[in-house]
Amino acid sequence: MKGFFKVQTPDQLYKKMDRFKPLSSEKVSVGQSLHRVLSEDILSPTNLPEFPRSTVDGFALKATDTYGTSEKNPAMLRVIGEIPMGQVSDIEVKDGEAVKVATGGMVPKGADAVEMVEYTEGVNSHTLHVFKPISPLENVIQVGEDVKTGEVVLHRGHLIRPQDIGLMAGIGKTDVLVFLRPRVAVISSGDEIVPIENIPKPGEIRDINRYTIVSMVEEIGGIPMFLGIAKDRFDDLKEKVKLALNESDMVIVTGGSSVGTLDLTGEVLQTFPGTEILAHGVSIRPGKPTLLADINGKPFLGLPGHPVSAMVIFHLFGKPMLKLLSGISREVVWHQIKIKAKASRNIPSVPGREDYVRIKLEEKDGTFWAHPIFGKSGAISHLVNANGLIKIGIDEEGLEEGEEAEVILI
Amino acid sequence: MKGFFKVQTPDQLYKKMDRFKPLSSEKVSVGQSLHRVLSEDILSPTNLPEFPRSTVDGFALKATDTYGTSEKNPAMLRVIGEIPMGQVSDIEVKDGEAVKVATGGMVPKGADAVEMVEYTEGVNSHTLHVFKPISPLENVIQVGEDVKTGEVVLHRGHLIRPQDIGLMAGIGKTDVLVFLRPRVAVISSGDEIVPIENIPKPGEIRDINRYTIVSMVEEIGGIPMFLGIAKDRFDDLKEKVKLALNESDMVIVTGGSSVGTLDLTGEVLQTFPGTEILAHGVSIRPGKPTLLADINGKPFLGLPGHPVSAMVIFHLFGKPMLKLLSGISREVVWHQIKIKAKASRNIPSVPGREDYVRIKLEEKDGTFWAHPIFGKSGAISHLVNANGLIKIGIDEEGLEEGEEAEVILI
Repeated sequence: MKGFFKVQTPDQLYKKMDRFKPLSSEKVSVGQSLHRVLSEDILSPTNLPEFPRSTVDGFALKATDTYGTSEKNPAMLRVIGEIPMGQVSDIEVKDGEAVKVATGGMVPKGADAVEMVEYTEGVNSHTLHVFKPISPLENVIQVGEDVKTGEVVLHRGHLIRPQDIGLMAGIGKTDVLVFLRPRVAVISSGDEIVPIENIPKPGEIRDINRYTIVSMVEEIGGIPMFLGIAKDRFDDLKEKVKLALNESDMVIVTGGSSVGTLDLTGEVLQTFPGTEILAHGVSIRPGKPTLLADINGKPFLGLPGHPVSAMVIFHLFGKPMLKLLSGISREVVWHQIKIKAKASRNIPSVPGREDYVRIKLEEKDGTFWAHPIFGKSGAISHLVNANGLIKIGIDEEGLEEGEEAEVILI
Repeated sequence: MKGFFKVQTPDQLYKKMDRFKPLSSEKVSVGQSLHRVLSEDILSPTNLPEFPRSTVDGFALKATDTYGTSEKNPAMLRVIGEIPMGQVSDIEVKDGEAVKVATGGMVPKGADAVEMVEYTEGVNSHTLHVFKPISPLENVIQVGEDVKTGEVVLHRGHLIRPQDIGLMAGIGKTDVLVFLRPRVAVISSGDEIVPIENIPKPGEIRDINRYTIVSMVEEIGGIPMFLGIAKDRFDDLKEKVKLALNESDMVIVTGGSSVGTLDLTGEVLQTFPGTEILAHGVSIRPGKPTLLADINGKPFLGLPGHPVSAMVIFHLFGKPMLKLLSGISREVVWHQIKIKAKASRNIPSVPGREDYVRIKLEEKDGTFWAHPIFGKSGAISHLVNANGLIKIGIDEEGLEEGEEAEVILI
């Protein structure tokens, strides 16, 4: 194990991480599918709309009857009825006739356009002036114009948003096949770590990572399971990792991958058959002591013990890993929309590693400015004051004032 | 009611909306507080860290002992012990001495800096070469450097993120006072609306709005309660609104505010004592037929029946209203960070109303481009293809290709 230790770049880790496969699927009702990931393509069994609908309140008519009209020279039409909402109507519109119709109502046979009520004036209950020319199909949404029968409206691997639920509801898709939410075991480790209810004795510190990592897992759609604090002893850590491998789809240990004296995690992992250590050490600051492994197809992520480093590394590697397990399509996982911001002052860095500097993002006149929050990586208050991390590339010596770089919102 | 109808601008609505107050509070455990809103200021009862901690793996020493050293000219120090993690130690470091310490470990008395292990070399078990000069306090985080006793670390009105939970955990805050999540009653209305399980008869359509609005309420942290589909009859709508006012903190009716023949909602509201209609009609496209009311301090929002209009209006007015009830500080509600994008082609608009055009946002070389998705406002498939709305101001005639405007992500 000791000999294996070779720091890798983030890109090398991403390439290795791409091997992890989504979990299996389950059926849920469409109303329960928000932020789940589709594991089937959704084909529409129907046209939307299923009948020609008016998009305005007004009068269905033949467009030709409006040609050449104006306020001074209106057309006079005979109102032959009204379309009741939600009902079918046999009325047929002929030349010189109009039928009252509300937004969403069916456009009756014979009519090819709807004049908005604003451009009409009732003369009496049977007679109407219209004074604005409209074209055929104006204010009418035709059968299948929104969605056609058989059309694929959503694809496997899509993260479901409110509008997607709306569309599925509209085509009568009541149940939907989605990927299972990954269960993520979280283990804290370190002899100095105590539960937050405790008053720490000198040298002890409260278990911050349990709370940050569990909430980040929650935020990204995983089901977190906290398995306790492991002492820096081979047996204790091994027992907890074993339980985690049995009960979950992904295992996270915080604090167990330090370069220091207490580097047990790698040794523990090697005792499980089928373990492949993918990375031990990554050229990132903060967060160098990161461990990534594949245990029979199950991802293992060892995070640094420092709360700030642990959060940064989870953002960079834990999130995409969890998204892959969740079934989100690979293109989306690896090609997220990225925000860029300009450094509000010089931010130094050392080439040879990616640097993630805590920043406060501010928008001014349409430009994003990143104000760096300098401080030692152990300071969690800096993360609380920050709302983003700005990336300084592996070959760069820092950012100059006004220089633009990628930002991760936190 | 009829005479009241006067279209207002979005800004007029926002000003009126600002009257709504947050709900009362409840205590939750810090681990359950993600995305809740603080209703108390959080003061730290303790220093963080509580003892001087090392931020690296290395050797605690007196910085003066490293001055003038180099690889060719190392200082030779005596290793007098090791700090066990999580334990207090009486060791005191004197000139010419060093103590082994791991990341997060306590820096012993007498030492004022920690030399990283990378810049040291063990000569034998008691002797160490150090070959890089460091300054006092380097790699040491001092008592209270992160957080000082009595310091306000988080403020009332703050939306709780993972790092905030981490900080509260770190200072031993196990329970936290948060605002109640608003219960939001959602009522669909319209004779043509049927439950999605039904096969719509000609003229009928499935209840899309129930699903989009309920999921948007969920997304923003409210507790949605769907109360059914009201027919376009005074009694049916009144009964459901009455139930909603009894059971919830905010009431939403979709489809009940059309300018057309079926405009019942306003009349129903007027029958409840203490009703003040704040707006009926807003100069926005899509979404003009929007109704905003204050019923004894409880907000009421009438959304257009068109699914796309309903979603746009909920984004613009429902979300900030819900945030105000949730207790999020007013500055944050009214001063969100806004993304801007450039129009990828000309987008026409009519002055006198704000126009929200569905767009597909794309990032290219650090610039956001908005590709408009044109279509009639009834088409929900356009919202599914979109991931944003671009705003065309009330006085503008449209956007020219390359012109920049504000984008709402959806």
